[in-house]
Amino acid sequence: MSELVRVAVDAMGGDNAPEAVVQGVVDALNASKEIEVLLVGDQKTVEKCLAGAQYDKERLQVIHASEVITNNEAPTVAIKKKKDSSIVVSQRLVREGKADAFVSAGSTGAVLVGSQVLIGRIRGIERPALAPLIPTTKGFSLLIDCGANVDAKPSNLVQFAKMGSIYMENIMGRKNPRVAIVNIGIEEEKGNALVKQTYPLLKECKDINFIGSIEAREIPNGYADVIVCEAFVGNVILKMYEGVAGALMGKVKETMMSSLKTKIGALLIKKDLKKTLKAFDASAYGGAPMLGLKGLVVKSHGSSNAKEIKQSVLQCIAFKQQNISGKIAETITIDKKTTAGSEEKPAAE
Amino acid sequence: MSELVRVAVDAMGGDNAPEAVVQGVVDALNASKEIEVLLVGDQKTVEKCLAGAQYDKERLQVIHASEVITNNEAPTVAIKKKKDSSIVVSQRLVREGKADAFVSAGSTGAVLVGSQVLIGRIRGIERPALAPLIPTTKGFSLLIDCGANVDAKPSNLVQFAKMGSIYMENIMGRKNPRVAIVNIGIEEEKGNALVKQTYPLLKECKDINFIGSIEAREIPNGYADVIVCEAFVGNVILKMYEGVAGALMGKVKETMMSSLKTKIGALLIKKDLKKTLKAFDASAYGGAPMLGLKGLVVKSHGSSNAKEIKQSVLQCIAFKQQNISGKIAETITIDKKTTAGSEEKPAAE
Repeated sequence: MSELVRVAVDAMGGDNAPEAVVQGVVDALNASKEIEVLLVGDQKTVEKCLAGAQYDKERLQVIHASEVITNNEAPTVAIKKKKDSSIVVSQRLVREGKADAFVSAGSTGAVLVGSQVLIGRIRGIERPALAPLIPTTKGFSLLIDCGANVDAKPSNLVQFAKMGSIYMENIMGRKNPRVAIVNIGIEEEKGNALVKQTYPLLKECKDINFIGSIEAREIPNGYADVIVCEAFVGNVILKMYEGVAGALMGKVKETMMSSLKTKIGALLIKKDLKKTLKAFDASAYGGAPMLGLKGLVVKSHGSSNAKEIKQSVLQCIAFKQQNISGKIAETITIDKKTTAGSEEKPAAE
Repeated sequence: MSELVRVAVDAMGGDNAPEAVVQGVVDALNASKEIEVLLVGDQKTVEKCLAGAQYDKERLQVIHASEVITNNEAPTVAIKKKKDSSIVVSQRLVREGKADAFVSAGSTGAVLVGSQVLIGRIRGIERPALAPLIPTTKGFSLLIDCGANVDAKPSNLVQFAKMGSIYMENIMGRKNPRVAIVNIGIEEEKGNALVKQTYPLLKECKDINFIGSIEAREIPNGYADVIVCEAFVGNVILKMYEGVAGALMGKVKETMMSSLKTKIGALLIKKDLKKTLKAFDASAYGGAPMLGLKGLVVKSHGSSNAKEIKQSVLQCIAFKQQNISGKIAETITIDKKTTAGSEEKPAAE
């Protein structure tokens, strides 16, 4: 049997922490014998949650962390001040090689900023990217980047396209994934300065299946597997998913409650409709990988339940076994060799 | 009685032209005695559509235009080459003062580009903006800019905020409209370079009710009346509305047809649901004004029906009577006086 995948999990992060996180970890341990979890948080609280649970105790270790970073704190400040927080302690475990991956449903800012600073980027990667899976009518696509670093350069976007492509092919099993760049029209000459500069660079890439521009209207229809954009635009796309779907479903519910007739109708379709809507909830995919770091970081959404934490933890197995970080590093190294004199600078490490 | 409002209407533009356009114009003439329409297009075709219709013939004139610009043509080329197209002829009528406003459901690019070149900007306006109304759970908001000019400057966005505010207050009757800038967080320090530079400028404006940043998630909830953003982002927002709503409703329909039980349920709520969804269709508002030009230009969406054309035409009455262009010019002039040494350059005219 191959070496165990060691995952540091932030027990204190998320709306349903620590209970849902601990439960998710227990379920993950029972679902796979290939992982080992370092559960990071207040020892007493975590042990209380673990009491009575059935799991392989050899593969779970509680690591004490006395502090918690909240969503209301400025990430850069929190990371520096709260050195004994569950997030910072977990990130240090990855940096020191004691863990392969880090899963957290806590403060997105602290996870992103801290991981970049404490875990560090893969050599050659200019900027790591947060890449959530978003639902489409055909399944799901990867939206890269939705992180906290805005105003990207064309070379950043090219790296996003490659990292996203590697992830979708190796982790999600999407063969020869179609890569598209978000644009306001499908013609090559369309776009803002960033897109116009990035488009020809993507066209030249031999290691991705670049299919051109995608208009935002087509994103939910699943016309591409990897959707490349700058983080400001990525954030807008992700939040429009949530906003439009939420507003629309609120209206649908109102309509269903508007008369006796519609109420009866609602009773007949309610259960099936709920299932449909869940499949189209952008937050349901839970674990968004942060790509380009020396270890895997999975940001689970704030309202994650046990099932979502479990999935985030299990995702780490394929990431390690498929050697995603190694594959990313390799692609970047090849680029360095073939594009001597490019603008890229090695990442500060 | 005040002077009639003269509206040039592109009879040949849109998926349902010329029939729906002509019908919309006839309906508008019957709905208001305050307008006069110059119907621009192939004389014979237009007259055939008009045959038998009841309306005040004194207030309708057919202006012959032998050419039509299609959606497949590059706007800048088409505007130059097809000087006798319904779009260009209409725009010339506005430039020459023979019409106060121009309504078209034709090529968005040709309408935008041509209007800027042929009608010209209000003195002091750096960039005109296309500002569609978008549906929210509370009614509608104005999204400015969704035009074809991307990579805006902070001073452009400030002008968008002011023009949008004047429009919402005077045409849509929204008192003291709340103005917000699209951002990836609500804190003042959040955002890309453009938003960070624009935010303090908007805060300083005494003639608008600036309420800060709005996250895309909150746009459909109607938390602001005027939503300011750069055109690339505006396009993404508008098209995500369409894309998410379309995909989601497709899924809802699929669910409703999935079993006998759900089919019966669907029968009971179908009619009400359809009404709800129509109210939440971003394209339903039809006429998006292009603000900052010397005359009003209303871009009706491509699939406009007679009712939407009628509304677009009638919208021009308030625009003229409320002297929106004058009010915009006035605000900009005041700005010029109080911000001597600013970056703004007078528009080339």
